[in-house]
Amino acid sequence: MVSKHFSLAVMIRPDHRKAVLVECALPGALEAVGERWSFLILRGAFNGLAHFEEFQSTLGIARNILSNRLGRLVEHDILRREPDPADRRKIAYRLTDKGRALLPVLITLRQWGEKWISGVPSNPVLVDRQNRRPVAPMAVRAADGRTLELNELEWIDRAELPDGE
Amino acid sequence: MVSKHFSLAVMIRPDHRKAVLVECALPGALEAVGERWSFLILRGAFNGLAHFEEFQSTLGIARNILSNRLGRLVEHDILRREPDPADRRKIAYRLTDKGRALLPVLITLRQWGEKWISGVPSNPVLVDRQNRRPVAPMAVRAADGRTLELNELEWIDRAELPDGE
Repeated sequence: MVSKHFSLAVMIRPDHRKAVLVECALPGALEAVGERWSFLILRGAFNGLAHFEEFQSTLGIARNILSNRLGRLVEHDILRREPDPADRRKIAYRLTDKGRALLPVLITLRQWGEKWISGVPSNPVLVDRQNRRPVAPMAVRAADGRTLELNELEWIDRAELPDGE
Repeated sequence: MVSKHFSLAVMIRPDHRKAVLVECALPGALEAVGERWSFLILRGAFNGLAHFEEFQSTLGIARNILSNRLGRLVEHDILRREPDPADRRKIAYRLTDKGRALLPVLITLRQWGEKWISGVPSNPVLVDRQNRRPVAPMAVRAADGRTLELNELEWIDRAELPDGE
């Protein structure tokens, strides 16, 4: 009896359980980035770190672990190795488009940590450069922008989508 | 020269670098959930799994690892152990409020995996129960709902926020 507690879970039909619980895209994503140091390296890259030595000294990570994790992120095409334009003997690690697409993942995790772990508003604050107001809380949203809670969600078969989706 | 490539990174002042790169709430969040099996256990809980045996058989995870990860999630108040109402000799693992607040993290990671790893639209599709349309792509948004790209973001000091934030 898995699906007894609808109010505490996303609504799901028995024939969709395997696809959602075993075959979804989450394991693939975790294979690429689901590890503490990988997230912290990405945080550095999003905030302008590019060189091995910068990552090493800023994160205080062991060199062999850093080397391993950078290599894995390059292998997954999340970071790209390129000669530094300022000194072409040096290698810079840059986010690819695929890597930049991880920004919402990091912001969502950070906001959750701020609210539920540290419990204090952190400083500095991430803002929209245009009006200097804080970014909105990350939330699951409907197509029209409404915030959706767990009990407002359902898994349906792609064939059952309304026309035009 | 860390902050040379503004267009590829969030704008950040030198005096904010330590707070953003070392002290932010991300490490705390990763300490609680930044591990592959923890994410997959949470995915199960969000989709109605509650018992040790259900997690074990659905995820195919070794019993000692499952036991360790469930224990850590309980310790971090992300899951709660409680007697199953249907059979009070059995223990059910339920998401707490803090755990349910991780839904956007999982959805964001899954959407990224769908777009950048598996590369095919997955089935079933997560929809808004009210109109059966797919949920919106997770994105960093301004207070007014606009999607913000990396180069539209900036870290500013909390004291510099516009009045009333």
